[in-house]
Parts: sequence; C-alpha cells; structure tokens
Amino acid sequence: MKKHNFSAGPSILPPEVLLKASQAVVDLDNSGLSLIEISHRSKAFVDIMENARSLVLELLGLEGKGYKALFLQGGASTQFLMVALNLLEKRAGYLNSGAWAAKAIKEAKIYDDVYEVGSSKDANYNYIPKGYEIPDDYDYFHCTSNNTIYGTQMKSFPKTNIPLVCDMSSDIFSRTLDFTQFGLIYAGAQKNMGPSGTTLVVVREDILGKVSRKIPSMMDYKIHIDKGSMFNTPPVFPIYTTMLTLEWLKGLGGIQAIEKENEKKARLMYSEVDLNPLFKGFASKEDRSNMNATFTLENENLKDTFETMLKEAGISGVNGHRSVGGYRASMYNAMPIDSVKALVEVMSELESKA
Amino acid sequence: MKKHNFSAGPSILPPEVLLKASQAVVDLDNSGLSLIEISHRSKAFVDIMENARSLVLELLGLEGKGYKALFLQGGASTQFLMVALNLLEKRAGYLNSGAWAAKAIKEAKIYDDVYEVGSSKDANYNYIPKGYEIPDDYDYFHCTSNNTIYGTQMKSFPKTNIPLVCDMSSDIFSRTLDFTQFGLIYAGAQKNMGPSGTTLVVVREDILGKVSRKIPSMMDYKIHIDKGSMFNTPPVFPIYTTMLTLEWLKGLGGIQAIEKENEKKARLMYSEVDLNPLFKGFASKEDRSNMNATFTLENENLKDTFETMLKEAGISGVNGHRSVGGYRASMYNAMPIDSVKALVEVMSELESKA
Repeated sequence: MKKHNFSAGPSILPPEVLLKASQAVVDLDNSGLSLIEISHRSKAFVDIMENARSLVLELLGLEGKGYKALFLQGGASTQFLMVALNLLEKRAGYLNSGAWAAKAIKEAKIYDDVYEVGSSKDANYNYIPKGYEIPDDYDYFHCTSNNTIYGTQMKSFPKTNIPLVCDMSSDIFSRTLDFTQFGLIYAGAQKNMGPSGTTLVVVREDILGKVSRKIPSMMDYKIHIDKGSMFNTPPVFPIYTTMLTLEWLKGLGGIQAIEKENEKKARLMYSEVDLNPLFKGFASKEDRSNMNATFTLENENLKDTFETMLKEAGISGVNGHRSVGGYRASMYNAMPIDSVKALVEVMSELESKA
Repeated sequence: MKKHNFSAGPSILPPEVLLKASQAVVDLDNSGLSLIEISHRSKAFVDIMENARSLVLELLGLEGKGYKALFLQGGASTQFLMVALNLLEKRAGYLNSGAWAAKAIKEAKIYDDVYEVGSSKDANYNYIPKGYEIPDDYDYFHCTSNNTIYGTQMKSFPKTNIPLVCDMSSDIFSRTLDFTQFGLIYAGAQKNMGPSGTTLVVVREDILGKVSRKIPSMMDYKIHIDKGSMFNTPPVFPIYTTMLTLEWLKGLGGIQAIEKENEKKARLMYSEVDLNPLFKGFASKEDRSNMNATFTLENENLKDTFETMLKEAGISGVNGHRSVGGYRASMYNAMPIDSVKALVEVMSELESKA
C-alpha cells in the first residue's frame, strides 16, 4: 500500500514522475539505453538539461529578464559557500531565521564580514525576524524563505537596493512571488523538485563578477553559466527527475495553480491544529509555513496512542525535528489533499478517544 | 534492442543493477515508498549508505587499516579543490598525464605551490610520464591512474614517503592493486560504480588535520567522516545504485575476478587494433589502458562506411574525444566481452571489405 508521505525531505514526488523516472532507468524513450548509462554530452541528455533549465525560468516568470538557471551539486550547504565566494567582497547581511540560516552565516564568515541583521534564535526560531534594516553598502542580503524545522515562512521580502539572495530549498515553486526581486535564488531539489543530488541556482547575471578573489572553477557561477550547467558531468538522474516534476507542475497550470492547492492543504491542517485542544502549533501564526506545519501534543501520555494510530493509517514521516520535538507535517507540492485529510482524521479521532 | 554501450562515462552498468534501481524508484523493498522520497535519515537509507561504504573498503582490501569511505558530490572536479584545501600546506607534486590531471593542477594552484614533477603534454599525453622524482618534503603527490581521453593507464605507482593521492575515476575496482599505498583515492561514480552524481573518496584518516587554513564545512573531509558521509543530504539514488553495483561486483568474486575479464576484453580489443592494418593505436603500447582503447582509422575515406557498420551492429559511444579524434572503446567492468567481440567483428569486416 502506498503510504501518506509527510517526509520533510527527501520527500513526496508525483506518482507519474516516479513511474517515468523508473522507466528511464531501464530504457530512456525507447533508445535502447538507460538514462544513467548515456553520455551527458549526448543529444538526449543535453535536451533534458536545456528543457529543465528553461522550465525553471518559465515557471518563475524570469524568461528574458537576465537570469540563468543552473543545476549544480552539493546541496544548499555548498551554496552557503558559493554565495560568499562569488558575491562577498567586504560585508553582507544575513537574516538568522533558523538552523540552516545560521549555517549559511557560519560558512560565509570564513570569507569576510557577515552581519546578522535580525535573528529569532532567542525563541528557538518560532517566528520570522522583522523590522530590521539593511545597509545600502552591503554586498548582498541573504535570507531563507521557509524554515523547514520550525515551520515558519517569510510572507514578504525586504525592499533593498542590494542583491537579495534567498535560500528557497523548502518552498520553491510552491507560491507566486515577484521573483525579479531576487538577485540569486538557490534550492536543493529534494523538497518540491525532485530527488536529492542536484541544487537549483537561479542568478541574475549582472550581480556576478564583482569580487576580487580567485574563485575555484567548481565554485564559480560564471563558469557554470558559460558551460551551460555542464562544466563537469552533471547528476543525470536527479536532473531528469526534476525536469519531469517541472513538466508535471506546468501541466497542472504552474505555480498559480499549485499555490491554491497548497493553501487549501495548509488551511485544513492548521484548522485542526488550532481547533483540536490536544494539539498546539509551534510557529507564530502570522509566520506559519504552507509547506511544513509544526505542532506538539499537549498531553504527552497520548503519544503512543497517537503514533500507533498514525502508523495504522499509513501515515509516514510526521515526527518533528529533534530541536523542536512533536510533529511536523510537510505538505510539499506533490502531496495530495487526501493525505492531509487522512492525518487530520487521525488527529480528530484522537480527540474523540481522549 | 539493447545497444553495445562503449560510452566513456556516464557508462554501462550491469542490467540487473539497472532493473533493481528502476524498481526502487517506484517502491523500495516493498516499503510502500520510493527510494527517492524517503528521508536520508531513515533506517532504510542509513543502511544503504553504510553498506555501500563498507563494501568499498572490503573490495579494496582496506578494512581495519585506518581508511574511511565517503560518498560526496561534485565529481572529481570538486576533489581537485578539496584535496588541495585539506592537504596542501606548502607545496605538492602533480603528475601531468592528461587534461584531467592538468585541471587538478590548475585548481590546486589557487591555494599554494604546485609542481609538475612530470608531464606528457608534449606528445598530446599519449604516454605516462616516467623517471621523475618526488621530493620528500612535499605535502603529497597527485596522479591520475587512468586517462580516459588518451587511453593510458599507470601500471605502477611511485614509491614515496609522502601521501600518494590518486584520481581513479576511470579505473577504480577494475584491477588488483595494493591500495594501502595510497593516502587518498577519489573517483566519480559514473564509470565503474554507478550513475553520475556521487564521488567516492577513500582516505587514510591520519593524513588529515595537518593544514592551518580554515576549511569550509562542505570541503572538509574530517567533517564528512565525523558525520558518517551524511553531513548534508546525500545523493540518494546515485549512492543506492553504486551500492547495487558493488554488491554485483562482490557476487562475481570481487576485483580479482573482474580483472581477469577486463584483461580478456582488452587483449581482444588491442589484438584487433594491432593486427588490422586499417587501424592504429593512439597510446604507447606499454601504457595502454584496459578501460579505454583509443585508435584511429588510417584511411579517413573509410570513416563513413565504418560508422554506418557500427550503427547497424548496434554499437554506441565509440567516437573519440575531440582532442584525440578517431575512436575510443570504453570497456568498463559492466561491459560483457560479447560487446567487444561485436566491435572487433565490425573492424575485421571493414578490413575484408576494404
């Protein structure tokens, strides 16, 4: 039986994407060869790469606006480093909204001055810092749009004249935004895009080339752009599967269509958290994420009963991160509302039992 | 029809590996979830990672000898950088035996002094440099065991007291060697191990921790070792498929068994190249690679006929690299001898036609 997969990442993908990716591992489009044993320089794979790159710009509304899409390796963790190497000349501002934001700050500090313009660390990151100022002479401002661990999400982004760099690993392609406000967006594939193993980078080319250091080739966005995201052998399977997911999203009607579904799922989930007296939401209401809902059981004695009921209902991956505890329901793009209904039913059944 | 796949990489994998990997993309071991949508922290994936890591050490005969195996991202190109960041304090020696070796030198030079102790660039890298000396006060010596583009392979490695670092991307697990002679081995998966998207690093722990620079976390071998190769989300599918290939190799009898097969394939291939007057080998005979045979057609007028015949025989991926021209037959571990026979038959048929 297929489970209801609430995993925070790697996470749920559309069944048709899984099926097509599975088929390509045996034989890609009746070519007589597997996707994973052909040259990345073959026409078949170059077409896949180019299709994936242009779908990204199309879905984000960034075509013809000076942006390039790259599929790199090393996860968001490598972007912490690449952002600093490519953009940090003197100083930069970072928003400390969670453990991943803090890691981004730590890695950038190796290269030069980094200032935390705002932080919610004092409250175990249960809200998004607000009311901060970003000096105009900083090289860039870095923020994390969605904080998976805590279930918080930035609902708006600061207006600034310096490049806005955003780690969108856990909510990219989930909601409409004016993406032209960003100079650089990056995201690990394993939430809304595909399997782990590739990282999307979308960068406005004019923000590059302004630092004086010598950048190692693999860390240099300009080199990857010049080589069409093929400076070295790319991760073929993760990119192909990402392309399939982007095609699926386009077929649904793009980000506008999926945003409506995501809002429905989140409303359903948070209504239950708020109305069911057994549960308590972790994140501040105004900053609640539409991707990851975090909540705790008010009465710890019900833990075993609840978890047995979850298991019996085929619900998987809802345990919270160790730094928050409780539960986390990740409701990425590919999750059908029926899975959220199944979880909400169990929560409501627990209430009637208790 | 399944083709004879001579691709230089990404390249041929055993059919049973492709089948099992394909199945896991839909449902991993009847778990009700796909391999690519489960958490990398789940028991299922942690077991896969640990199995893959220990198979590496077992197959290389390095168990209990102070080595650790890691599955990282970013290809050999990222290792060019990581090797220097982790090991280069003052100066290092590099053997320039091909385009990839030259790239390794270029990236390391960003960090400190790098000396080419030997080079075969003068002859378009058609041989392996020999007779060089390695000063004892260098931090390490770096070489490339197999040069895919030129079809050359180091048959022995220099004796030295400093750590020997080897890029084995294109011949790892293909031949028996005393692997304890190496301080660090790295290899992109996409030749003898699996799909593109993960890079194997095998490192003797005692060579680490000797440089004074601050190493970014994602570039630090010690951090990856401490985190059990799970510092960040690993590339799940490439690692799983690599594990399957290593299990397949172990089932065949390990490196000793595959080495015999590889020698048979190479003998068959090179006999034809040497005996057929229409063809000429590119690499020096004593340095010929058992993985990649490079050769040219003596009479360019036969090119179209030859290539049509190749296509009709279902032979794929034998075009040479642009810097060498001609043809390249890559005969990695997973290639059955029947594919080499098919290629040799076409070459021999061309001779009888000409």
